[in-house]
Amino acid sequence: MTTPQSQMSDEEQIRALIEDRIQAVRTKDATGAMSVVAPDVLLFDVVNPLRNVGADKARQRIDEWFSSFEGPIGYQLHDLKIVAGTDVAFCHSLNQVDGTKTDGNKLQMWWRATVCLRKIDGRWTITHEHSSVPFDPATGKASLDLEP
Amino acid sequence: MTTPQSQMSDEEQIRALIEDRIQAVRTKDATGAMSVVAPDVLLFDVVNPLRNVGADKARQRIDEWFSSFEGPIGYQLHDLKIVAGTDVAFCHSLNQVDGTKTDGNKLQMWWRATVCLRKIDGRWTITHEHSSVPFDPATGKASLDLEP
Repeated sequence: MTTPQSQMSDEEQIRALIEDRIQAVRTKDATGAMSVVAPDVLLFDVVNPLRNVGADKARQRIDEWFSSFEGPIGYQLHDLKIVAGTDVAFCHSLNQVDGTKTDGNKLQMWWRATVCLRKIDGRWTITHEHSSVPFDPATGKASLDLEP
Repeated sequence: MTTPQSQMSDEEQIRALIEDRIQAVRTKDATGAMSVVAPDVLLFDVVNPLRNVGADKARQRIDEWFSSFEGPIGYQLHDLKIVAGTDVAFCHSLNQVDGTKTDGNKLQMWWRATVCLRKIDGRWTITHEHSSVPFDPATGKASLDLEP
């Protein structure tokens, strides 16, 4: 980490962390994406199960997800808002993915993301992440084609 | 509000807020449930749409949800964790509802909840709430029968 964190505000530090993570997803760099995640992270993911506990499980999930794409992943965060205290923070955004799956199908999808952080040993660290799509109560289907 | 907030820690204040809100849901007291929600709250809800913005919209959603139940609502939070800084906080839990819908059907369901708060004018206030169920990628269906 070469960024001079000490000269950045808490919000700037978190924005840099989120931007580094966007780049890590685009290039399918699982180690980079996981480098800011706490060992005991609690992950509420877009797909089953109800929850995943721990960085090992989160790493497994991200490996599976990355390997389901052919080539790089188109990935953008929209309406990112960061609320940073001195040692607790949260952010929310609408995340958009655009890529080609290994079966040749194109994927274009939006989901909701909430990322919660604590400053641990002076470094902002993700301790909880909640990603989801809503569902349509009329059909029971997950809404995979919504756009803001 | 008769609770002497000034004598409680931030975590205790938030726990009291969450417990008051559980009671408000059980008794279908929408005004009580909404009393701790910021005017510009961002709600990622279990069902469509992708997002709801503002307390008026959130109130409308809760009114619709409450009126879909016959009688009181069985409602419990499990594994509630509160992470409170001095002016920013978040909590997460697995929420369980158990009740009879107005069409006579029993509803028993779990979902994931993340609640984010800011201390505004000395009072903890919910500015963001994310509630969801995951989906099963094999069927595209929302997973309404998962248990932890």
